Amino acid sequence: MKKIVIALGGNALGDTLPEQMVNVKKTVKVIADLIEDGNTVIISHGNGPQVGMINIAMGELHKAQPDLPVIPMSVCDAMSQGYIGYDIQNTLREELLDRGIHKGVCTLITQVAVDRNDPAFKNPTKPIGRFMTKEEADELIGLGYTVTEDSGRGYRRTIASPKPKEIIEIDVINSLVNDGNIVVAAGGGGIPVVHEEGNHLRGVGAVIDKDFASCLMAKELDADCLVILTAVENVSINFNKPDQKELHNVTTSEMKKYAKEGHFAAGSMLPKVQAAIDFADSKDGRVAIITHLNKARDGINGKTGTRITKG
Amino acid sequence: MKKIVIALGGNALGDTLPEQMVNVKKTVKVIADLIEDGNTVIISHGNGPQVGMINIAMGELHKAQPDLPVIPMSVCDAMSQGYIGYDIQNTLREELLDRGIHKGVCTLITQVAVDRNDPAFKNPTKPIGRFMTKEEADELIGLGYTVTEDSGRGYRRTIASPKPKEIIEIDVINSLVNDGNIVVAAGGGGIPVVHEEGNHLRGVGAVIDKDFASCLMAKELDADCLVILTAVENVSINFNKPDQKELHNVTTSEMKKYAKEGHFAAGSMLPKVQAAIDFADSKDGRVAIITHLNKARDGINGKTGTRITKG
Repeated sequence: MKKIVIALGGNALGDTLPEQMVNVKKTVKVIADLIEDGNTVIISHGNGPQVGMINIAMGELHKAQPDLPVIPMSVCDAMSQGYIGYDIQNTLREELLDRGIHKGVCTLITQVAVDRNDPAFKNPTKPIGRFMTKEEADELIGLGYTVTEDSGRGYRRTIASPKPKEIIEIDVINSLVNDGNIVVAAGGGGIPVVHEEGNHLRGVGAVIDKDFASCLMAKELDADCLVILTAVENVSINFNKPDQKELHNVTTSEMKKYAKEGHFAAGSMLPKVQAAIDFADSKDGRVAIITHLNKARDGINGKTGTRITKG
Repeated sequence: MKKIVIALGGNALGDTLPEQMVNVKKTVKVIADLIEDGNTVIISHGNGPQVGMINIAMGELHKAQPDLPVIPMSVCDAMSQGYIGYDIQNTLREELLDRGIHKGVCTLITQVAVDRNDPAFKNPTKPIGRFMTKEEADELIGLGYTVTEDSGRGYRRTIASPKPKEIIEIDVINSLVNDGNIVVAAGGGGIPVVHEEGNHLRGVGAVIDKDFASCLMAKELDADCLVILTAVENVSINFNKPDQKELHNVTTSEMKKYAKEGHFAAGSMLPKVQAAIDFADSKDGRVAIITHLNKARDGINGKTGTRITKG
């Protein structure tokens, strides 16, 4: 019986609504397994395709009705939490009831504070939304957005991905968890806000990496495990090379060495590994697991996946 | 010290994002007053303009990228809960901290079950979104939507407004309230769902009246007061006539008589009055108050507003 924060990656949700409805059905079975085993589970998730879709829809609305104000990215993030959270809580509720498990399942709109001086704001690197033509890209650039050419596949809007510093609603999440509810929180890495004068929190145009936000939430909830679910069963070194080697039980020092040697792709496996190291290093006994969505239960039980512990 | 469910109407939020940001700042002062007085406050709100905006944006996205699936109304409702809830919780948190009040403030994505056989589904009457030209209206009708001509001002999409039967996340809301948190829930009347085979809840294309949903939530939370905040200080009979008369302390039987006599406009004051009657009649001691947003505190303290009690 452990307290587990699960970070759901893109393959747990899919890129479009029909994909999401299929994938979420599978995903909640995995989560329900862990709950059935007696664990306390807190769920977070990415939102790349979803917030991209919402952002583009709001852009189309602005094109059609230019008198309407542009909807900022932070508001799109909030919408995406509602969108994805509704689907997860609806589907997980059903799966739990089908197994005779009566628990509250809910989604909490979550703000996550970042540092206004985070260097990420000067170098927006996170691609969001669909690929665009040069023409569409130039139009966006004209509106003040950052757009980057993506290895010959077209242009995508890129925004800042600052580090999460504080989960504003953490006490509420904690109280819900302690009352036995299953909580979806910090969706899409949270709505990014910065502390301003007084007690004001201002929404900012950014997307926080969901693995870093999940790590922070796991630490603040004093979780035993951070489980990062992705498309591979194990993290590998020398990935896609003849001497590729799967990692099973690894210490944080070993992982740091591998990361330094450049084994993990930026924007893909690297943030997962960094979040895992951060969590495992934060307190003795904490375990971070990176594994395939379908292997979550085996991963928790030590049968598969890459398990990272302090050392 | 009372347990109060507040239903925020359109003037508490505004029609556009800039309006919303101004109005919500005023609205949270009113709510913070009630919290400062020691009351337990639960907040719900309408979402007409917001869900209309999101729905139109999703329509524009579908026009621009026809290969993308249409985003259903229930998902737009979920997005609008994130959108509005984020703004309320962000602004109310600041207002409370400015007064030295440390309480969790949060938004819960809320599903509300309706009866799949509700006659409203056969007669969609609730207008959403902006006014359209005949051409635009015909296009939507071609896609299977209901569109209605609105007294010479143009065409608007109309959808069903079924009665709320069950707040799916009520236990979670209750647990949050009991732990001393300020909760925004059942936003926009809730995401409308119907019970299907087994434990499945299916989202449906509808908008639940926020006053009816607030009434149901107030009853299920065993609240003392349902406060419906609107643009007038008192409900009136013979409204806009020479013999217009403001109502102050009224029994449910008197209100039912006035409603029957046609004193209250359908889709405007009538649902507020009906929700108020329903709540006051549901248990001895329960009071429903309809008053102006700025008069909430005086209304609770019996100094103004229309107070409806069982009788």
